[in-house]
Amino acid sequence: MKPKKQIRVGMVGYRLMGRAHSHAYRDFPFYFDTDTIPVLQAIAGRNEKAVQIAADKMGWASVETDWRRLIERDDIDLIDIVTPNDTHAEIAIAAAEVGKHVFCEKPLAMSLEQAKRMLEAVNKAGVIHMICHNYRFAPAVQFAKQLIEEGRLGKIYHIRATFLQDWLMDPHFPLIWRLRKEVSGGGTLGDLGAHIIDLARFLVGEFSEVAGMMETFIKKRPIGSMTDHLKGRIESDEWGEVTVDDAAVFIARFKNGALGTFESSRFSKGNRAGNRFEINGEKGSIRWDMENLNNLQVYLDDEPGLQGFRTIHCTEEEHPYAAAYWPAGHIIGYEHTFINIVSELMNGISKGYNPKPDFEDGVRNQAVLEAVEESVKTRSWVKVSEAIHD
Amino acid sequence: MKPKKQIRVGMVGYRLMGRAHSHAYRDFPFYFDTDTIPVLQAIAGRNEKAVQIAADKMGWASVETDWRRLIERDDIDLIDIVTPNDTHAEIAIAAAEVGKHVFCEKPLAMSLEQAKRMLEAVNKAGVIHMICHNYRFAPAVQFAKQLIEEGRLGKIYHIRATFLQDWLMDPHFPLIWRLRKEVSGGGTLGDLGAHIIDLARFLVGEFSEVAGMMETFIKKRPIGSMTDHLKGRIESDEWGEVTVDDAAVFIARFKNGALGTFESSRFSKGNRAGNRFEINGEKGSIRWDMENLNNLQVYLDDEPGLQGFRTIHCTEEEHPYAAAYWPAGHIIGYEHTFINIVSELMNGISKGYNPKPDFEDGVRNQAVLEAVEESVKTRSWVKVSEAIHD
Amino acid sequence: MKPKKQIRVGMVGYRLMGRAHSHAYRDFPFYFDTDTIPVLQAIAGRNEKAVQIAADKMGWASVETDWRRLIERDDIDLIDIVTPNDTHAEIAIAAAEVGKHVFCEKPLAMSLEQAKRMLEAVNKAGVIHMICHNYRFAPAVQFAKQLIEEGRLGKIYHIRATFLQDWLMDPHFPLIWRLRKEVSGGGTLGDLGAHIIDLARFLVGEFSEVAGMMETFIKKRPIGSMTDHLKGRIESDEWGEVTVDDAAVFIARFKNGALGTFESSRFSKGNRAGNRFEINGEKGSIRWDMENLNNLQVYLDDEPGLQGFRTIHCTEEEHPYAAAYWPAGHIIGYEHTFINIVSELMNGISKGYNPKPDFEDGVRNQAVLEAVEESVKTRSWVKVSEAIHD
Amino acid sequence: MKPKKQIRVGMVGYRLMGRAHSHAYRDFPFYFDTDTIPVLQAIAGRNEKAVQIAADKMGWASVETDWRRLIERDDIDLIDIVTPNDTHAEIAIAAAEVGKHVFCEKPLAMSLEQAKRMLEAVNKAGVIHMICHNYRFAPAVQFAKQLIEEGRLGKIYHIRATFLQDWLMDPHFPLIWRLRKEVSGGGTLGDLGAHIIDLARFLVGEFSEVAGMMETFIKKRPIGSMTDHLKGRIESDEWGEVTVDDAAVFIARFKNGALGTFESSRFSKGNRAGNRFEINGEKGSIRWDMENLNNLQVYLDDEPGLQGFRTIHCTEEEHPYAAAYWPAGHIIGYEHTFINIVSELMNGISKGYNPKPDFEDGVRNQAVLEAVEESVKTRSWVKVSEAIHD
Repeated sequence: MKPKKQIRVGMVGYRLMGRAHSHAYRDFPFYFDTDTIPVLQAIAGRNEKAVQIAADKMGWASVETDWRRLIERDDIDLIDIVTPNDTHAEIAIAAAEVGKHVFCEKPLAMSLEQAKRMLEAVNKAGVIHMICHNYRFAPAVQFAKQLIEEGRLGKIYHIRATFLQDWLMDPHFPLIWRLRKEVSGGGTLGDLGAHIIDLARFLVGEFSEVAGMMETFIKKRPIGSMTDHLKGRIESDEWGEVTVDDAAVFIARFKNGALGTFESSRFSKGNRAGNRFEINGEKGSIRWDMENLNNLQVYLDDEPGLQGFRTIHCTEEEHPYAAAYWPAGHIIGYEHTFINIVSELMNGISKGYNPKPDFEDGVRNQAVLEAVEESVKTRSWVKVSEAIHD
Repeated sequence: MKPKKQIRVGMVGYRLMGRAHSHAYRDFPFYFDTDTIPVLQAIAGRNEKAVQIAADKMGWASVETDWRRLIERDDIDLIDIVTPNDTHAEIAIAAAEVGKHVFCEKPLAMSLEQAKRMLEAVNKAGVIHMICHNYRFAPAVQFAKQLIEEGRLGKIYHIRATFLQDWLMDPHFPLIWRLRKEVSGGGTLGDLGAHIIDLARFLVGEFSEVAGMMETFIKKRPIGSMTDHLKGRIESDEWGEVTVDDAAVFIARFKNGALGTFESSRFSKGNRAGNRFEINGEKGSIRWDMENLNNLQVYLDDEPGLQGFRTIHCTEEEHPYAAAYWPAGHIIGYEHTFINIVSELMNGISKGYNPKPDFEDGVRNQAVLEAVEESVKTRSWVKVSEAIHD
Repeated sequence: MKPKKQIRVGMVGYRLMGRAHSHAYRDFPFYFDTDTIPVLQAIAGRNEKAVQIAADKMGWASVETDWRRLIERDDIDLIDIVTPNDTHAEIAIAAAEVGKHVFCEKPLAMSLEQAKRMLEAVNKAGVIHMICHNYRFAPAVQFAKQLIEEGRLGKIYHIRATFLQDWLMDPHFPLIWRLRKEVSGGGTLGDLGAHIIDLARFLVGEFSEVAGMMETFIKKRPIGSMTDHLKGRIESDEWGEVTVDDAAVFIARFKNGALGTFESSRFSKGNRAGNRFEINGEKGSIRWDMENLNNLQVYLDDEPGLQGFRTIHCTEEEHPYAAAYWPAGHIIGYEHTFINIVSELMNGISKGYNPKPDFEDGVRNQAVLEAVEESVKTRSWVKVSEAIHD
Repeated sequence: MKPKKQIRVGMVGYRLMGRAHSHAYRDFPFYFDTDTIPVLQAIAGRNEKAVQIAADKMGWASVETDWRRLIERDDIDLIDIVTPNDTHAEIAIAAAEVGKHVFCEKPLAMSLEQAKRMLEAVNKAGVIHMICHNYRFAPAVQFAKQLIEEGRLGKIYHIRATFLQDWLMDPHFPLIWRLRKEVSGGGTLGDLGAHIIDLARFLVGEFSEVAGMMETFIKKRPIGSMTDHLKGRIESDEWGEVTVDDAAVFIARFKNGALGTFESSRFSKGNRAGNRFEINGEKGSIRWDMENLNNLQVYLDDEPGLQGFRTIHCTEEEHPYAAAYWPAGHIIGYEHTFINIVSELMNGISKGYNPKPDFEDGVRNQAVLEAVEESVKTRSWVKVSEAIHD
């Protein structure tokens, strides 16, 4: 057997997204016929003990306590960034400058300006770059894309998309990093909104202008960590201010004339991962819901009387990526969206082309985020910047 | 305007089914373009006060306290029988003998032999006769029939049908007439099973043989009335034996080779009116559920990748009976199944043909019921009698 | 039996809404125990032949070809207005001035100013007045209201509501009155948006401010009538301009701090009557969809592990209005929302109090509509007027 | 870090189930905190080239072309049997005799007698043994079990279960090994029926007696392989007889008095993996569907008006196995049922106890299968054998 090309990965960070990425690297060669395999070379984190435990658990060969050291290592081909948002730019730019390929969690940056600098860096270095908008890679979403590309829906008139959660509704939930703007860069908008903006860009096209509102329903929270929280209700004397939004809602016009409504919230009781959209076109419509991510609801103009949304279980060999897994009717889960995006990344590095979504998508996404924020501030419609370079 | 032909109705009984039939007669001319209108001429019941209240409430012009008197009246064209099952045969035969058309609630009779005598009587008299299997007349069910007739499903392989309820699960629920075999003729089998047998005969074809089981989960109940029950838990000293089944389950072979499973139960918690079926054919499948009776789920062999059950909201003008009501998307309810069957009955009487389902259907249904009972007794497969005459 | 009080109705107009109202008057006494019954006294319409046919079909005792004549008649107690929107104000004010009670279709008027004049007129005359927001009267919606009033959802954070249709998507569909602003007063906003604004006001509370957009996707349409359209594709040489919106989308803040998104469209393929909402509160959430209007999805904080949206089939005796109809599990339809609102109207007239929703609700609804239109024009947030009098 | 205990696995067979098992061994240590890890030591298959390709692809360290050689190797602790059913007994007994633990695909054997011999062998050898009824290990199914054990459903009255597929409906589909009784031991009954029998035994209890029917809808098929089939329609001159059932339907009584209906079919168009059940108890009901395997529908007696089936997304930390994976709302797939059962197997071997389901479950399952077959032959009810030893 011909030896496989190895892509040696160095990952910065190791929390939830680190876990999802690590698993994808491990599992990808099992499912996909590939001449390229990722090697879990090293992960970096500041807490030596914690990072070592994570490495052992997830199968990484070595650890670093400084991401700069990771980037310097010449046994690393690809830097994967799964750290809080305020560190993305510095790491990505440094990695690109030494010629490493870069895979970065979303949102790309803390600002549009920062995102543009990141794009400039990877372009200048000529490295492969991707942003981890994993939901594009659910087979049902890829199939939706295919239907739209084939013109099955015709001209698009509407998209309505939500990403609704409810984990933050307890007033005693602590002031974690995600709730401090200086670290997270934003609240639900950057965390959840960025995903549905990406899905809209992927499926409908570029945004033209937006008008939105944001709200922080609970304005002060106890100082404490997630670990404290898991032990029981935090009865702290110290309370700090939440500096990000609990919900962000906006309406949009797309360049192709479509209208959109978008809603991200952590205050939507009963919605654990309510990442959903409906798209209406001239000839058909589609609906998707991440909580049952294998299904796509499709309505197509059809024989009168026989019209209706059909529930397509996107586990058939005709559905994108589905043939890599199990027989029809046997579902895949959340983690497979990461395996699928990793398959694109590996393929791109191996074959020398840049897969989508890339840092340009990151920049365009950031432009929408920034326009929404500006719109909230100015209480008016704001055009989405088209410039991807300064 | 040309005067409409009046069909003068005399109804025996006035409880739940009487209410459904009365409403249908009243509402039918509003919805349907018709040259025939039913006149609510008289109802009969033994309790003079109660029957008068019912007549006033439901709009009947007169009352009788003896159904024989009703049948004697020459201002009555049609006798509608909504009494307990032990009285159907006597009333229907008497009505036919004096030349009245007959509309009878299901199950037709207490036995196959009795049902055959009823059929013989209406045939001999040459009157119009129908049995009230109203669920055939949900637009979604009629549309299912149309798809099957057109061959859209191809050869039928399977039907699985249930009629599940849960109103009898309280052990203190009283021993009402439905639970005494001498009055009701049977338990869930005749009450609920008769409906799904009819749907199966309508959609799949004739039964060939059956094997079944029945169970009475709660064998003794307090003596008391429905009225007592509605006042609160009955703490009676007197308990009587339940002489009918709480659940009846059977499997069947059809003449065309299809296999069926059937289940009627009053002990299926959470199912208020779980009248549901799925039919699988060579080229497609359908699913229906009375609790959302406007919807039909339809799967048809289609372009690979685009296959899935489609939810058809049978409120389009292409769907049977739907054009008589509201615009697409605006649902109809339970009562409209009765309006639709009444439209067939009126049309049949007016035009002089006998609509389906008729007493022959009643006989064939009774033959299945009797075969199931026999099968339960003998613990073996039993052929369903094909003879509709003695 | 005590004679029932008769409320003699005169209805202006007789198209779709006229049909829905007529049926409700006829059917109400059958279902509800009432000492008041509506009498279908007269309908008015300009086309004598057409109005006579409608009267015969729907059971009205007499006709008028001028609504002014109807209002003059002293054998009429209640004027029911189901005409195009540009005539509501004149008829309602004239009716009130001669002391008739008034029941008016939505939206109340062509402008906020006009709506206020109507409210002033009915108040001055001291007559009973209602606006026909029938969807409030689906048992599931009433039950939602009850849960919210009881505090089961806690503080409300979000509402997202749509009313999506697709009957206008054919570019050859003619330029009917609904598409000419001078007659209809507006497009989807007034027609569909008014309904979801009413549901939001009913369930969440008063609007504070709005920001929206509107679009006319197809700007010119052939001159022709609905009748022409039903005969086949209109190939007219004459095309006229559509002067109303095909879709209206807006976001809103409520006085109680809740955030809302609203979307009305006639260009949402596959949605025949997509009148849907989800409301998220501090302790629970609800979802409703008119296409299965008997169901309410309810999520309540519950034992961990057992949390989930429950599908409540609002046909139990505990559900508002449901006891008037059929046993649990047996659904009602679109028309019953009208029967229920008529029951309130009859009760109000009989007992001498003014039921909700009334002309004040009409004014408040109009204030939201006007704010949305202003917002679209000015491309900014607009406060919703609180004044209900000039 | 303390070194982990290694369990060295030797697997016989490498098709679909081999792939599912292999993946589970690989993925288990990533998700579960464990002191035991499986080592993919060797796989056996007769075709040297094919088995080597499979080993490389799935990560097995070595290959054997004779399973006997695999069993002889002293670097193997556990034999995993994923071969056609006619080989299970010989391999399992040989493995046990040399002291290997045994994990075997279902159905356990070709006959009840064979299954008992297998149980006797593992018992005599004192090795750990499991049968791979993986669907027990969907979190939703485990949660259903927990609810039943806690008495939340009360006494069980009904189960209705199906496993419906449609991959065999093309008359040109070839006569593969699954369709030849001498290799497969049976058709849908052993393949699909065995799964739903196991779920019923797990959730409801032991079977008492059964009555069933079987059908082979298409009796002759072209001689050819799956590989031929994938190339296009097989136009073979040689046709052979299908010796197994295409569908098996039976009804059952359980020892605790519950009634069951069971249906396995490969002729249920539109059902790719219709493994579904509903269980009705005295106080509640549950519904599950493998095609959306994360969801459990639960109905519990609750406050009147608020009763309804709730859709529980079994991805919360309270749900069995769910904490090992992703945050609430993020689904897992088919493969995780295997990871979960492997976690039990590893734990059992490590801690020295025998997890369920084991060979005793295999014997009891086989007793039901055999009773159904006997019932089909004799056209009568057949008692299910309780003896697990000869």
